[in-house]
Amino acid sequence: MKLVSVVLSGGAGTRLWPASRQAFPKPFMKLGGSTLLAQAICRGQACGTDELLVITNQDHLFLTKGVIENLADPPRTHFLLEPNGRNTGPAIALAALHCAAVHGPDSVLVVLPADHLIPDTEAFVACANEAAEIAQRGQLVVFGILPTGPDTGFGYIEVEHVVRESQAVLRFVEKPDLPTAQSYLATGRYYWNSGMFCFTAQTMLDALAEHAPRALHAAKAALKSSKAAGEVTRFDAHEFGLQPDISIDYAVMEKARNVTVVPARFGWSDVGSWPAVAQAHPEDASGNTFIADVVSVETQGTHVQVESHGPKVVATVGVKDLVVVDTPDALLVAHKSAAQKIKSVVDTLKARGHESTQLPAAVHRPWGTYATLKEEAGYKIKRITVKPGESLSLQYHHQRAEHWVVVQGLALVQIGENEFRTEPGQYRYIPVKEKHRLSNIGSDELVLVEVQCGAYLGEDDIVRLADTYGRA
Amino acid sequence: MKLVSVVLSGGAGTRLWPASRQAFPKPFMKLGGSTLLAQAICRGQACGTDELLVITNQDHLFLTKGVIENLADPPRTHFLLEPNGRNTGPAIALAALHCAAVHGPDSVLVVLPADHLIPDTEAFVACANEAAEIAQRGQLVVFGILPTGPDTGFGYIEVEHVVRESQAVLRFVEKPDLPTAQSYLATGRYYWNSGMFCFTAQTMLDALAEHAPRALHAAKAALKSSKAAGEVTRFDAHEFGLQPDISIDYAVMEKARNVTVVPARFGWSDVGSWPAVAQAHPEDASGNTFIADVVSVETQGTHVQVESHGPKVVATVGVKDLVVVDTPDALLVAHKSAAQKIKSVVDTLKARGHESTQLPAAVHRPWGTYATLKEEAGYKIKRITVKPGESLSLQYHHQRAEHWVVVQGLALVQIGENEFRTEPGQYRYIPVKEKHRLSNIGSDELVLVEVQCGAYLGEDDIVRLADTYGRA
Repeated sequence: MKLVSVVLSGGAGTRLWPASRQAFPKPFMKLGGSTLLAQAICRGQACGTDELLVITNQDHLFLTKGVIENLADPPRTHFLLEPNGRNTGPAIALAALHCAAVHGPDSVLVVLPADHLIPDTEAFVACANEAAEIAQRGQLVVFGILPTGPDTGFGYIEVEHVVRESQAVLRFVEKPDLPTAQSYLATGRYYWNSGMFCFTAQTMLDALAEHAPRALHAAKAALKSSKAAGEVTRFDAHEFGLQPDISIDYAVMEKARNVTVVPARFGWSDVGSWPAVAQAHPEDASGNTFIADVVSVETQGTHVQVESHGPKVVATVGVKDLVVVDTPDALLVAHKSAAQKIKSVVDTLKARGHESTQLPAAVHRPWGTYATLKEEAGYKIKRITVKPGESLSLQYHHQRAEHWVVVQGLALVQIGENEFRTEPGQYRYIPVKEKHRLSNIGSDELVLVEVQCGAYLGEDDIVRLADTYGRA
Repeated sequence: MKLVSVVLSGGAGTRLWPASRQAFPKPFMKLGGSTLLAQAICRGQACGTDELLVITNQDHLFLTKGVIENLADPPRTHFLLEPNGRNTGPAIALAALHCAAVHGPDSVLVVLPADHLIPDTEAFVACANEAAEIAQRGQLVVFGILPTGPDTGFGYIEVEHVVRESQAVLRFVEKPDLPTAQSYLATGRYYWNSGMFCFTAQTMLDALAEHAPRALHAAKAALKSSKAAGEVTRFDAHEFGLQPDISIDYAVMEKARNVTVVPARFGWSDVGSWPAVAQAHPEDASGNTFIADVVSVETQGTHVQVESHGPKVVATVGVKDLVVVDTPDALLVAHKSAAQKIKSVVDTLKARGHESTQLPAAVHRPWGTYATLKEEAGYKIKRITVKPGESLSLQYHHQRAEHWVVVQGLALVQIGENEFRTEPGQYRYIPVKEKHRLSNIGSDELVLVEVQCGAYLGEDDIVRLADTYGRA
């Protein structure tokens, strides 16, 4: 059996703002020491496969590669890069087409969303093995979650009677309203739809041909016009956009008759909101989850997490069931019961064009990261990190000069036609309009403090003359 | 009549942490555009006096001078600098002795704590004029506040019956417990003691001689051993410390029979807690007081204020009656009803030796300010401001080199025996162990970005060779 992990790394995670942002979405959030994306990939590897297919937005390629490179044992990976957001239907159709071509029509795909939390990998693997076996018998397998309440955030799966063993699915239903969800629970006939699936490439292609021929046709056309280079497949934005924006549930699962549910015999969370994040952490005696330096007085059930440029202490006094998330450019204070309404904050900020919905406090680039520490009229201070072996583009600026101080690692600094080896404590000056390039020639991360001076300091004042990452 | 404003600038304002700190206490907090201290001084000036006596801790001299210099019309000022914290008894005894000697025994002192809020200056002046007239008849005048509730944070003043006109005081009582405060209110015989007083120097000296002869004697001894230089009187720490640590209420007011209360016919707050700060700001339709960029959803009665190195947005969702105070190194989230318990947070942090109880995010020095923007192993980034005409000490460091970039204003940088005029966008390098000095030779504030590099970056690695402020 050829097993392939298919990791779907989509969703913005708006409800986890300000930790999750458009350019740094939920899969990249750390929970329990590693990112949710890394956990999904390792979960796939634990099932015994070393083949990984990642479907993600093209803007997140470098961030995703960074996560994979930092794994103890990185799997063989191929990337299908979405030029724009589509739903799970097109993503799974493309995955099935790709796997059928590369790994054969009998290859078994385990579809894993990149933003789920499953603490017990061993229990997951047991279920996945069972699912793979059933998938090889021509079934479309879905992992069902035993509901803990009438949640309206999930689709539901109806069976004859919940028996906690794999069984035929009678019906997929979309996210219900509360009374409907309550009535479902009362019957004892429903699972939650986890969004995790298992099937052979051929079974899915057959199902698509029967139930969603238009989606399958559009996926084939998108793949035909795509360009594969090494581990990366890039799509033509127009052809890709012609695919219908539909979920795999709607395209296939609701209509197919060969669907089997394997009940999840493991703890599971889609980490869909701040209370769910809190639940994923161990509580103290007062039900608090503090991922920060917190001094608390008469505080109960409160979640605090902090990401800051320097040491920061948080004091909570006389509060209950709050979520406090502090970042350098945005602070959230919410009651857990209102956590779903964070979306409207993000909508408001997006309407204002506020950066905190787009960019994380540390902006990730293919070569490393930068964070703005201070900006006032006439100057801006940045902390820049560069990964070993990486280089920024050869560039110049029309309106700003830059002062560089290396504070960690070993840099090669090109200024005009000259190159300077630059060590921690050493300084280089980049005049206005002078071409320059920063490279990390050491084996450790390079950290540089940059003081930009000029009347205009926008990120768009950059002329790229050459770039390793195709941005020139 | 010679009228003198006596501004008592003491109190730490622990309950206003993290905005108020030991090195940046409550009088320096801004409320409604200017500091409480500036407001107290202007209140005194509005009464028609141009003589100001400030009694404050010697550590706060430069900060206090900065406030006075920035006034539109700075008054003639003398400073009595306390080497260590004493109570209002010694402060007022020293003020009376000083004024009797300098302005004559008949000079009238208006004693104003530096951390009160009185929005209506005109109404205050009318009361102060009345008080000054009564003071000239040999009375010790106290400003009484009509109680709005059984507050246990104030001392109370008993009269025959509250008539809302000046009248004889029967009794001063210390801060009561709640049942006692309630019983006081029920009688209609009590004012709150505002801590604002008015008397002639001679009346107070006579009262001290009669009721607190030991305190008067100690104050005379402290003054005798003091050193006056220009506008500043400094005390010998030992002699100063021999004064009893007692309030003027306990030393004199509770015992004297010539005490008159003038009822305050003006709004007044001692801004003693975060809810009081919130009350001092205009509310929005939901009772919120936002001194920050706030996006709120279903938020009521909540106070938010932010002091940050860069732009920062705060989102509040589904919360009620909270206080949120964010600073670069400390964040407070408290329920208004628990605001008194912030003191225990500060106690905990003090026990840990946490800087956020001592130093503000921007540290004030006689020459200007500095703020640490980022600190990691091997380097530290500071933003330094220098006032026009001021200089840092001539100094060197054993273990760190410094990279300086001027980003605003005009600097003179001494390095070794050389001096360099340095403009915005220009850079200077200070090697380890090299003597150096930074001066502002322009007419605007100088702003400098400093990147320190070295294995040890503590503030104590400084050897001062010469200093304008007597710190060498």
